[in-house]
Amino acid sequence: MLTLYYAPGTCALASHLALEYSGGPYEAVRVDFSKQEQRSEAYLKLNPKGRVPVLVTDQGVLTETPALLQFIAQSFPDAKLAPLADPFLMAKANSFNSYLCSTVHVNHAHRVRGSRWTDDEQAMETMKKKVPQTMTESFNLIENTYFKGPWVLGEQFSVCDPYLFTLAGWLKSDGVDIEHFPKVADHYRRMAADPVVVKVLAAQKAPA
Amino acid sequence: MLTLYYAPGTCALASHLALEYSGGPYEAVRVDFSKQEQRSEAYLKLNPKGRVPVLVTDQGVLTETPALLQFIAQSFPDAKLAPLADPFLMAKANSFNSYLCSTVHVNHAHRVRGSRWTDDEQAMETMKKKVPQTMTESFNLIENTYFKGPWVLGEQFSVCDPYLFTLAGWLKSDGVDIEHFPKVADHYRRMAADPVVVKVLAAQKAPA
Repeated sequence: MLTLYYAPGTCALASHLALEYSGGPYEAVRVDFSKQEQRSEAYLKLNPKGRVPVLVTDQGVLTETPALLQFIAQSFPDAKLAPLADPFLMAKANSFNSYLCSTVHVNHAHRVRGSRWTDDEQAMETMKKKVPQTMTESFNLIENTYFKGPWVLGEQFSVCDPYLFTLAGWLKSDGVDIEHFPKVADHYRRMAADPVVVKVLAAQKAPA
Repeated sequence: MLTLYYAPGTCALASHLALEYSGGPYEAVRVDFSKQEQRSEAYLKLNPKGRVPVLVTDQGVLTETPALLQFIAQSFPDAKLAPLADPFLMAKANSFNSYLCSTVHVNHAHRVRGSRWTDDEQAMETMKKKVPQTMTESFNLIENTYFKGPWVLGEQFSVCDPYLFTLAGWLKSDGVDIEHFPKVADHYRRMAADPVVVKVLAAQKAPA
């Protein structure tokens, strides 16, 4: 059995969606960021990084979204959530996910998590100001280069799609209009209407 | 044939080392950052991100170190550079590499690439000041939690090792004494003495 620890509004949504798309059995456990549960002793034992997502498996604990996404795809191969049999296409998928993780998510984090990289309040304000620009640059690159259509990798839906959906959902709060990226915007609408996405978002919003 | 585009002093060293450890045929092409070659029209056609590493394969172009490392390991399975047959252990490897890419490399980048996230010179100075702290926190986590020994994943050498070696090599310039992390420091010394590492570093330093 797989158990995902998540918090609403975080990148853990990508893994939550991938698990639901996998069709496999899993449990989702909400971590209450408003109570700083991710800093509790019990949680830090599970994940010393103090973050989500965490995936608890029969073999041990995993962190980092790109690693979780490939693992979920490999755990339920019948769901065909990644080009597992083709190392080059798998590398394309991992490259996309790594870009979301190490560049796009990091750009976004400079709006509300600036204290990770500076102790100066004024400096944090200057970081916030640049987020619309960096997010626009990243999504221009996705729109014009990496998004094949109709899904991220082309004809085949994959774990890249819920991950893109998750980060595209942050554009509005980052002060960027998703309509600047027509292919990404269309992808976002199709994903948002998918019963799997509707179900998972409702579960994340339900009273604890 | 695989062709790696790299610049000395960058994270491309991890993929360069992985290729050399693979025993497979490859070519390494230096990109001259002092001439802003990574911003040239020809290079941006290859990699619109304007960065290194880039791996050109018979099937197309790949970017992002974690994706390259798994692809190199899969391309030369006899070299046993990753736990390819075990999805959980592979996820452990990918989780380690993703942490290096999205957290440790990003921490380091706030010392000399602060202009990615702010336009304010003073804010950049405040970011630089925090780098020793963030790098120390990251390497404490690696030392105490993620480094199994004698190699990153335990008894089996993997692509995680050249990647850790690459980023550990940045500690000195980031104002952090590697000796604060005894296991990482020992790993760094063993890697630095390995003929494969000596050969690749010499090739990267040789006149163009």
